[in-house]
Amino acid sequence: MSDYHPKAKTDHRICFVGDSFVQGTSDPLCLGWAGRITQDAVARGTNITHYNLGIRRDTSRDIAARWEQECAARLPTDCEQLVVFSFGVNDSSIFEGSLRVPEEESLANCERILRSAAARYKTLMVGPPPMPDAPHNRRVAQLDKQFADIAVGLNVPYLSVYEVLRKDEHWLKEAIANDFAHPGKFGYDRLADLVREWPGWWFK
Amino acid sequence: MSDYHPKAKTDHRICFVGDSFVQGTSDPLCLGWAGRITQDAVARGTNITHYNLGIRRDTSRDIAARWEQECAARLPTDCEQLVVFSFGVNDSSIFEGSLRVPEEESLANCERILRSAAARYKTLMVGPPPMPDAPHNRRVAQLDKQFADIAVGLNVPYLSVYEVLRKDEHWLKEAIANDFAHPGKFGYDRLADLVREWPGWWFK
Repeated sequence: MSDYHPKAKTDHRICFVGDSFVQGTSDPLCLGWAGRITQDAVARGTNITHYNLGIRRDTSRDIAARWEQECAARLPTDCEQLVVFSFGVNDSSIFEGSLRVPEEESLANCERILRSAAARYKTLMVGPPPMPDAPHNRRVAQLDKQFADIAVGLNVPYLSVYEVLRKDEHWLKEAIANDFAHPGKFGYDRLADLVREWPGWWFK
Repeated sequence: MSDYHPKAKTDHRICFVGDSFVQGTSDPLCLGWAGRITQDAVARGTNITHYNLGIRRDTSRDIAARWEQECAARLPTDCEQLVVFSFGVNDSSIFEGSLRVPEEESLANCERILRSAAARYKTLMVGPPPMPDAPHNRRVAQLDKQFADIAVGLNVPYLSVYEVLRKDEHWLKEAIANDFAHPGKFGYDRLADLVREWPGWWFK
């Protein structure tokens, strides 16, 4: 549960930092879950500017290298500075025969990113979603648990979405029908609902 | 007129780089004109990933300092690499008694950005929109004309929106009712229509 209670007049600036699932790849609405939950908060009268900093194929290593500079350019100190991270699926994928990022490095990147972010900004993390591939999924599930432990240790609220989306009626079905990775409208709707209903999310 | 004809199956990646008007500040849909025209192209079957790199308060100087790195991280060479710029309103605003960016520097920044971008990416530019402030507007109008000349000289298609939006029934009215700068839904709808109907825009 976040202890932050936003006020309507406050100038909230929020960066969503992550991979293609943050970017909203294959979403016909071009909003992704980040756009959906921001649109919803804006509709209820909150003053928010949202920056979608999801990049396709990004691993925790790519994000570690860019998030500080990209967020600093978008979050002035006289505003309410908020950051939401989500990554991990690309770390745990196999490329040319090997894991894109070794598990130890993924965990170290996650710890370093969250520690540094939480020292400056109100910070949340959303875990990686499931993939329609069993071996990949086992690695995602393991990373999700370990990321959650790291976040809890740093007092960063963490939302695991892996199990719920794995059983969701749309997520994997849409991914299989699309590109074997990204869902469509209903999958992003569902993930947006999960974040919106999460006690950690700031805008209710 | 752009000589580029996109194919449905091509993996198009597009960066919209600019200021708050690119970001879509105050748009209740959280899409801005960039999100609207992308959503529309996607609905007609084009494969596009769009990255909104508009940042509030950014001048041409701020954009010159960040656009290369931010675009390079988002535009892999095996994809169709596209960039749309739009800036100028913040250059020509007065802050603490002086112009935020002197006119000569604005023009030099514009030339440098467009020259460098056009050498690597398919590049377009959309001019700065009008403001509900007459002296500011005169400077915006002048910058718009000079930016257009620079773009034409570099073979970068340029869309001037200043005159049309100044006479638009919604743009300035929404800006005045909001924060004296940014329109709301109808203003962004209108600007999106202007870009969509422009022969320079890639996705018809």
